[in-house]
Amino acid sequence: MSARDQAIAARAAMPALMRAGTQGRVAALNRMADALVVREAEILAANALDVAAAAAAMAAGKLSSALAARLDLSRSKLAVLADGIRAIAAMDEPIGRKLRHTEVASGMDLRLETTPIGVLLIIFESRPDALPQLAALALRAGDALVLKGGAEASRSNAILHEVLCDALAPDLPRDALQLVRTREEVGELLALDDVIDLVIPRGSNALVRAIQSNTRIPVLGHADGVCHVFVDVDADQDMARRIVTDAKKDYPAACNAMETLLVHRALVTAGHLPSLLSALDGVELFAHPEQTVELGLPAAPSLHHEYGDLAATVAIVDDVAAAIAHIRRWGSAHTDAIVTANAATADRFIADVDSACVFWNASTRFADGYRFGLGGEVGVSTARLHARGPVGVDGLLTSRWVLQGSGQTVTMTRTGEVAYTHRPLP
Amino acid sequence: MSARDQAIAARAAMPALMRAGTQGRVAALNRMADALVVREAEILAANALDVAAAAAAMAAGKLSSALAARLDLSRSKLAVLADGIRAIAAMDEPIGRKLRHTEVASGMDLRLETTPIGVLLIIFESRPDALPQLAALALRAGDALVLKGGAEASRSNAILHEVLCDALAPDLPRDALQLVRTREEVGELLALDDVIDLVIPRGSNALVRAIQSNTRIPVLGHADGVCHVFVDVDADQDMARRIVTDAKKDYPAACNAMETLLVHRALVTAGHLPSLLSALDGVELFAHPEQTVELGLPAAPSLHHEYGDLAATVAIVDDVAAAIAHIRRWGSAHTDAIVTANAATADRFIADVDSACVFWNASTRFADGYRFGLGGEVGVSTARLHARGPVGVDGLLTSRWVLQGSGQTVTMTRTGEVAYTHRPLP
Repeated sequence: MSARDQAIAARAAMPALMRAGTQGRVAALNRMADALVVREAEILAANALDVAAAAAAMAAGKLSSALAARLDLSRSKLAVLADGIRAIAAMDEPIGRKLRHTEVASGMDLRLETTPIGVLLIIFESRPDALPQLAALALRAGDALVLKGGAEASRSNAILHEVLCDALAPDLPRDALQLVRTREEVGELLALDDVIDLVIPRGSNALVRAIQSNTRIPVLGHADGVCHVFVDVDADQDMARRIVTDAKKDYPAACNAMETLLVHRALVTAGHLPSLLSALDGVELFAHPEQTVELGLPAAPSLHHEYGDLAATVAIVDDVAAAIAHIRRWGSAHTDAIVTANAATADRFIADVDSACVFWNASTRFADGYRFGLGGEVGVSTARLHARGPVGVDGLLTSRWVLQGSGQTVTMTRTGEVAYTHRPLP
Repeated sequence: MSARDQAIAARAAMPALMRAGTQGRVAALNRMADALVVREAEILAANALDVAAAAAAMAAGKLSSALAARLDLSRSKLAVLADGIRAIAAMDEPIGRKLRHTEVASGMDLRLETTPIGVLLIIFESRPDALPQLAALALRAGDALVLKGGAEASRSNAILHEVLCDALAPDLPRDALQLVRTREEVGELLALDDVIDLVIPRGSNALVRAIQSNTRIPVLGHADGVCHVFVDVDADQDMARRIVTDAKKDYPAACNAMETLLVHRALVTAGHLPSLLSALDGVELFAHPEQTVELGLPAAPSLHHEYGDLAATVAIVDDVAAAIAHIRRWGSAHTDAIVTANAATADRFIADVDSACVFWNASTRFADGYRFGLGGEVGVSTARLHARGPVGVDGLLTSRWVLQGSGQTVTMTRTGEVAYTHRPLP
């Protein structure tokens, strides 16, 4: 079956996904969770082949160690995945939720309600544990799915796909979950703007940018994660060190890791900088290019630089206004945090920093669908439309207007037979 | 000032739009409404010049009568516009509305709230009354605006822009409302994906398609309006005639006008078709290409055809399932209606027709922002992402996550010092 035929088959499965109802979709998700545990031996055996091949490829210099490291599945990872899918199954029904409800005129009831987007194309690299989580989020939202994984995880993805598809029956059609296997088909898939409604890339910035430039299908995702922590003059210094350490060192490759530390000048004047920077022990530090002498650090390549590693830029700012201006000018509007005990300063920061996630006294690392209580995420969006920040099931829904009348016409509103009331309903 | 500089100036006005607060934005809108009335003589004088020039151009065959007809402003049109702007001003504050509120862990409060999208580019043809309405909707949502009107309305647009900008002070910055004047600048504007967040075309299908193909900026709008009315076997025949008449004849050029009438076969068998078609007296009728003999009508050019005129396609379908299949296959997912007294049939239709607007016993002509109670509309979206159907102020907003913690780190969730609660808050 060609990639196009696979996408068409996914599209054809949409009405059945809706008709299955809450009960059918929830039952299928719970069976998917069970199957990951019951069939773990098959899954781990296939994964072991991928891992062995990756080790050989790495030894031959054909695969990066970062990609290889993400391949590995384990019994405990599968159990965590299964729990995550059960949590997504246990959510309140996301489809058909009323977003707005209005009496348009006497006998005319209008509601705006959530509905599935349609067919999603998710392109992901390496990490095979993404597949079950993405499948669960999409099916919970009633969306059909075309998945394209990395070649290095092909055996793991194939068995995970088979296990999950087997678990769909009898409630959901097997066609709702398509796995595309060869690399050549990505370009073909990106051309299918008449069949696919949304592309979600999960992977490197380079992957996201390449996809955005090569398709007319809307793309949900982020290309940059230049996150800031601003340590204000009124910050509790212990809290600041703890948050800065976590924001940079907990997982430096994550998009929600801190790339730039902004320090209030008064803290520097008061001699607090060395103590604050001790929080970044083991992190390679660079200075704002205009502050290399003052900070005694080499210049950062740019103020809009994502290290994605144990490295960070340090910049001194005069006050909260300067911190806000720096973030608006140089940030990527992903996640930016202030550490301060001063509520007025925090309010100003929260009001004026226009990022997808704005945090006060918390690590940027909390910008994550699971941590936000969304049950998981398909990614973090820095686009301004549709969904922003961590995207869970809600971001995989769209809306539609349902109007129930009793024979009204627009002509009758002109003759006075029908009068608009526009009364909000519960 | 170049178009790029204008867009940059609009972007720079964004923080001031936010800082003005509800009071400032509402006061500015009310002054805009007043100014349209107070300065009507200036506005009507400029409009008269456009209308005279259009009449000359029409006589010379250089302007279509449809475009020319939309140019005309009048005292009563300005009064209606002013009332519309006052209604938009009187809406509940749309910015900062809580969409979701969660206790992430003890002492961690997370809310998802509405926030302005940023800078909108609205490209509209002819109709100068669009300008004040679009400006009011955008400013109510805290968005800055770059407007590009048609050359034939240039004098009207210029004076409307001046009148509205004069009314912004002292609460809102004049730069928030930019009018670009020359045709050449459209291409330049569409290239500004680093400054403009959203393009909204208001005009012909050809305009919308041309814009979609020539920009990387997200486009909100619709290209097609192939709307259906399905008259079920259980329809009240008087109601059906009334709705069919209104849906086609009230304003045939509108995107929410009926293009295809679907008739249940049992009605045809029972001899009700001539009476039903009498509702379309004066409308040129075409048949489903496979039913020309049965209907005694010439074949429609295609089942996905938007006449935009006093013409319509008629098709006989076997039952509600066939009607749904026809609409899913041939429609444009804009607005589709069923006329029936049978609630079970209506439920089936509403559940399975996946259009932006699905109506039961009401004319498709109600698919409109004002009629839906949105205070107006920037357009009707048939895209599946962000906003669907009539787009009012809500569709001009995006969202952001605000997290207020008390020093929590992700590391602390692993050591057990912080426990996720993910408790929904009011």
